Amino acid sequence: MFILRKPTGKASQQTVNKRTFYSLILSLSLAGALPLLSSADEGMYLFSNPPLRQVKERYGIDLSQQWLDHAMHAAVRFNNGGSGGFISPDGLVITNHHIADEFLAKLSTPDNDLIANGFLAKDRSQELKAPGLELNCLQNIEDVTELVNNGIAEGDSFAEANKKRSANIEKIEREASQKSGLRCDVVTLYQGGQYHLYKYKKYTDVRLVWAPEQDAAFFGGDADNFEYPRTSLDAAMFRVYENGKPLNSQNYFKISPEGTSENEAVFVIGHPGRTNRLETLAQVEYTRDRILPYRLARCRTMEAAYLQFAERSAENARRANNNIRSVANTRKASTGMFQGLCSKEIMERKAAQEKSLRDRVSDQTPWQTIASAYQDFDTNYDACMLLENADAFPSPLFSMARHIVRLAQEREDKKYHLKEYAPNKLESLKLRLFADSPMYADVEKTALNAGFSFLAERLGPDSPDAALVLQGKTPLDRAAELVDNCTLFDPAVRRRVAEMSLADLEKYQDPMIRLALTVDARSRELRKVFEDQLSAPSTAAYAQISRERFAIEKDSVPPDATFTLRMSYGKVKGYQNDGREEPWRTTIGDMFTRAAEHKNIAPYNLPQSWQKAENRLNKDLPIVFVATSDTIGGNSGSPVINKDGLMVGLNFDRNQFGMVRNFVYDEQKARHISVSAPAIVEALEKIYGADSLVKEIRR
Amino acid sequence: MFILRKPTGKASQQTVNKRTFYSLILSLSLAGALPLLSSADEGMYLFSNPPLRQVKERYGIDLSQQWLDHAMHAAVRFNNGGSGGFISPDGLVITNHHIADEFLAKLSTPDNDLIANGFLAKDRSQELKAPGLELNCLQNIEDVTELVNNGIAEGDSFAEANKKRSANIEKIEREASQKSGLRCDVVTLYQGGQYHLYKYKKYTDVRLVWAPEQDAAFFGGDADNFEYPRTSLDAAMFRVYENGKPLNSQNYFKISPEGTSENEAVFVIGHPGRTNRLETLAQVEYTRDRILPYRLARCRTMEAAYLQFAERSAENARRANNNIRSVANTRKASTGMFQGLCSKEIMERKAAQEKSLRDRVSDQTPWQTIASAYQDFDTNYDACMLLENADAFPSPLFSMARHIVRLAQEREDKKYHLKEYAPNKLESLKLRLFADSPMYADVEKTALNAGFSFLAERLGPDSPDAALVLQGKTPLDRAAELVDNCTLFDPAVRRRVAEMSLADLEKYQDPMIRLALTVDARSRELRKVFEDQLSAPSTAAYAQISRERFAIEKDSVPPDATFTLRMSYGKVKGYQNDGREEPWRTTIGDMFTRAAEHKNIAPYNLPQSWQKAENRLNKDLPIVFVATSDTIGGNSGSPVINKDGLMVGLNFDRNQFGMVRNFVYDEQKARHISVSAPAIVEALEKIYGADSLVKEIRR
Repeated sequence: MFILRKPTGKASQQTVNKRTFYSLILSLSLAGALPLLSSADEGMYLFSNPPLRQVKERYGIDLSQQWLDHAMHAAVRFNNGGSGGFISPDGLVITNHHIADEFLAKLSTPDNDLIANGFLAKDRSQELKAPGLELNCLQNIEDVTELVNNGIAEGDSFAEANKKRSANIEKIEREASQKSGLRCDVVTLYQGGQYHLYKYKKYTDVRLVWAPEQDAAFFGGDADNFEYPRTSLDAAMFRVYENGKPLNSQNYFKISPEGTSENEAVFVIGHPGRTNRLETLAQVEYTRDRILPYRLARCRTMEAAYLQFAERSAENARRANNNIRSVANTRKASTGMFQGLCSKEIMERKAAQEKSLRDRVSDQTPWQTIASAYQDFDTNYDACMLLENADAFPSPLFSMARHIVRLAQEREDKKYHLKEYAPNKLESLKLRLFADSPMYADVEKTALNAGFSFLAERLGPDSPDAALVLQGKTPLDRAAELVDNCTLFDPAVRRRVAEMSLADLEKYQDPMIRLALTVDARSRELRKVFEDQLSAPSTAAYAQISRERFAIEKDSVPPDATFTLRMSYGKVKGYQNDGREEPWRTTIGDMFTRAAEHKNIAPYNLPQSWQKAENRLNKDLPIVFVATSDTIGGNSGSPVINKDGLMVGLNFDRNQFGMVRNFVYDEQKARHISVSAPAIVEALEKIYGADSLVKEIRR
Repeated sequence: MFILRKPTGKASQQTVNKRTFYSLILSLSLAGALPLLSSADEGMYLFSNPPLRQVKERYGIDLSQQWLDHAMHAAVRFNNGGSGGFISPDGLVITNHHIADEFLAKLSTPDNDLIANGFLAKDRSQELKAPGLELNCLQNIEDVTELVNNGIAEGDSFAEANKKRSANIEKIEREASQKSGLRCDVVTLYQGGQYHLYKYKKYTDVRLVWAPEQDAAFFGGDADNFEYPRTSLDAAMFRVYENGKPLNSQNYFKISPEGTSENEAVFVIGHPGRTNRLETLAQVEYTRDRILPYRLARCRTMEAAYLQFAERSAENARRANNNIRSVANTRKASTGMFQGLCSKEIMERKAAQEKSLRDRVSDQTPWQTIASAYQDFDTNYDACMLLENADAFPSPLFSMARHIVRLAQEREDKKYHLKEYAPNKLESLKLRLFADSPMYADVEKTALNAGFSFLAERLGPDSPDAALVLQGKTPLDRAAELVDNCTLFDPAVRRRVAEMSLADLEKYQDPMIRLALTVDARSRELRKVFEDQLSAPSTAAYAQISRERFAIEKDSVPPDATFTLRMSYGKVKGYQNDGREEPWRTTIGDMFTRAAEHKNIAPYNLPQSWQKAENRLNKDLPIVFVATSDTIGGNSGSPVINKDGLMVGLNFDRNQFGMVRNFVYDEQKARHISVSAPAIVEALEKIYGADSLVKEIRR
């Protein structure tokens, strides 16, 4: 599947902290070296610099400003790592089931597992508020590059320049937010080549409307994930409320009754998370040799632990289901990336791209700066990921404890200024921190035991960093004592503790708060090493490379993805693989055929609702289709629209050949995979009996 | 479960090669420092030095020489890594289902999965020959320490001394084997403190008689593995044939009709694989900081790959079932060991033991030698495990290719003398090499892809060692081309190719043979580094420590386990855990209760045969019991007998508290877990209708 999630893949409480730091450490990317884009359908374009020429040349289509504005305002970002879009004037939003599943899990009980059973609100009063979910809708884009670099002098050290930039960014965001009342984020494009100010409408009253059973949404399970041909209905719907009423969403995507057809031009409107195409070869090699092996080892550690826990009972399986899917997804995606980077052919292509730019540039320093920065930082990589990125603490209980401690520090001491606690970020952070999501002691013990074991395996249990955390105990015992005595399960307690002074926190009897306090100094030290040794010099070097590249290519090459709104274009098209002709689409009938072939055994089992409706369904209707457009994780739930702005599908995955898209785009076999929009309507009508929803959509 | 298997856990073809080298690299242990054994039931004793005094003191029992001789001759070693015992005069042998499962898998077809369905030979003509299975029955033990050290001079370097010892051992084994016609192995005890010559009767015509369904044998699955309370029937039976007729096995264990009872003294007669109790602290720390993290990372890599493969269809699951169980078992056992070694308390106990010996010894050199040897070898550890220990090649196809190449080298060039190809080893090796076991291209591709990826993750795909193997291809592509074009699936081809000269092998068109040839020089180089830098100095140092320790303690402390026959003693006893009183036994009724609690959902599902027989069964009969006796992996299938020599149980596991037994013994909570023998007879009679077997056993 297709989602921007961190290896940790745990509940939303982590996301605020995690995304901020994680994006630093892993998407430090940008402007490396790339000749002009090939003639292929490559590129995730900014709405402020759309590919009008390319679309006209390749598809003969003129995209109007009106078409673009409409698409931008109808698109929605899911802040847990996905995309979506409005599909009715009453605030109805569609996204993938695997973006919704986190909230389905939170809204489930031992008696009603919404992931297993699905959900349909009988009427609007039955819609369920998703705890901690925030949606963003982009309103405006502004270039603020000069403001961000304001006051930086020639002789400034990397660290000084970085500090000034951070202060400028914080100021721009704060002032813009005060003035507009909107969520305002400065987005780093071309890793410092450009900075844009994105203003969003922010929605936090978001309610679950409909989700199919996981057996339908994730038909084929982990086995089919990142594979094609594929049959599944990876979709779910929410409704946005404002002041207690459904949002009046004037811009929304109408669903095309006919869907798409072979060779049609389509446009993906969504929020790709991260690509690495403009990274230097040295950085890509570091990703291959260090980051991906680390991440794979960590995913497999968590996956084995969760699976063992899940095997003990059906209720355990329900509780851990979301964690398992998330970590398996990251493991599979990372495997694909690593496989790709093991290919000499791909690495030679990267090398040739880099050479072609470097040959045209006289100053080779920035490339050397980046290579040295990674070398310098390397000895701290594991410790930094484990402590400051909290990989050793894969529990929302720890994330919450850390937020509580750092919020107090931020209130009391200016020297503790971390960007994720900037005033304009606090509201979103608290939304997640105080959300009433169920947590289970046994799941959190399992997760922390695995995280602690991974910490001890990587650094050695006797190492100062591991000893600080474990305190001479086994991972199992330490996890148990932390969770058994943790008070933070209760949102009311969290609200209260989050108001405490640092002095009171020091005295507060909660081992998780104590752990967050204990590791804080070392954790901040590692972050500073990261910022000074890696982030600051790389940013400066990439900015220089960027300037060199702009001088040659202008901004015809879009920046690497940054989990901000982009558009891609491509066409609906099958491909050849291993002598087989893979079709441009699969049908509802194919889904039944595959279930029968597997004797309806999991993960190829259809829910009863589908079996009962079999005779009523139009089996010839496409359920899934593939297209060449350029996508990546974070694009999950992106509306796929046609030249008339009608929604023909809902992107949810790439095939295995698309898994190196982080690094290179390929048009021959790589495809993104979408649920066909009319199949969603067909299912709503004939399987789920969601008549009023169907009426609302068709209106 | 309780089995001596290597992390690779793949088919038997590997075992011959693997065990030899693996035992070198991981059980280099011995004589570290340990005061006299505590008063607890600790110790896996040699039959040549049985714990007569201890058993008399603790249990008031006099063990006669006749009792000992009978137990020794009725015990059986399963050369795939387990134990067993004769239970009738007609060569009937009992062991664990999880020792038999490798052969159940080999004898299965897509139409009849013996692991899922179980097996019962209607009569002797229906018994199925197990491909490649060799059983050994110990006949005689002789101290050959002086002969082994013969000719080693004071001034010899570590490497020279090692070479002389190896030559002596080879000569002793060869001559004894020629003289006696038996399988003769020199066993290194106290890692060079003593060398004993073990003579075995060897049986290679071993046929499957009975096995229950895996759902009964492995009830509770991976979740219950290494846990207690437990309910399962982990048992299976084979029959030994000699000259086409059932063996006349005069020494056999009669099954006690009453079974055991609380507090009864019991004796475990089996083949514990490896313990590390006498290792120096430096070696234990190396195991904790380097070996176990490596092994865990590898197990998780293989497990994730096999699980993903298995999820694709029921037939895939059948094919990969045995690999999954094996690798999950090693992962879980290694997790337990690692957890234990993270405990400050346990490490301080080890340190105190070492100090108490070192305080009494003037020369501290050997401890320093061992610590330095590990330091020196460390940079080669990964490469050595990956290439020479074949961790990068977890497929029997590669193991076979390597054997074929090395057999040719041994025939043609004396300088290639590797101990696993000594003349007296060849017969057993060829038995496995030419056994007709099914292999599946898709399983082998999955395994090699994972092994290659692990290689690339550990060393980097650009490293010379990984490049030698991958040749610039992705792990996936390289695995596919190797397997798709491999000729070694067919045993007739293997027989033919194994006769070829090296020159012909060089020309032979098989990419797997080519790979074995390509990596051979580097692989041997790593082995030499291992032998010279680690094995030789450690062996010499341990021998010296051993002499010092003998001077103080004599041989009252048994040597670390070496997968040779031992006896342990203990008593049947429950324990307290987390405020709960865990019972000394569970009953057949408990098994039905647990299935009901889990709604008969896997892994807590009873097979239909059990459900049908429910009303006929004596539900009060114990099915599983626990005792304090000292056991470890390799003891799987060990007969548990009472003072009268009657079999009361069949050992199959330890509980989680017994998982640090490699390093320390604990009597308070650590228990070994056995199937109660009368429950096996009850099941044979009332569930499986195996009347003639029951009659044979009761005779």
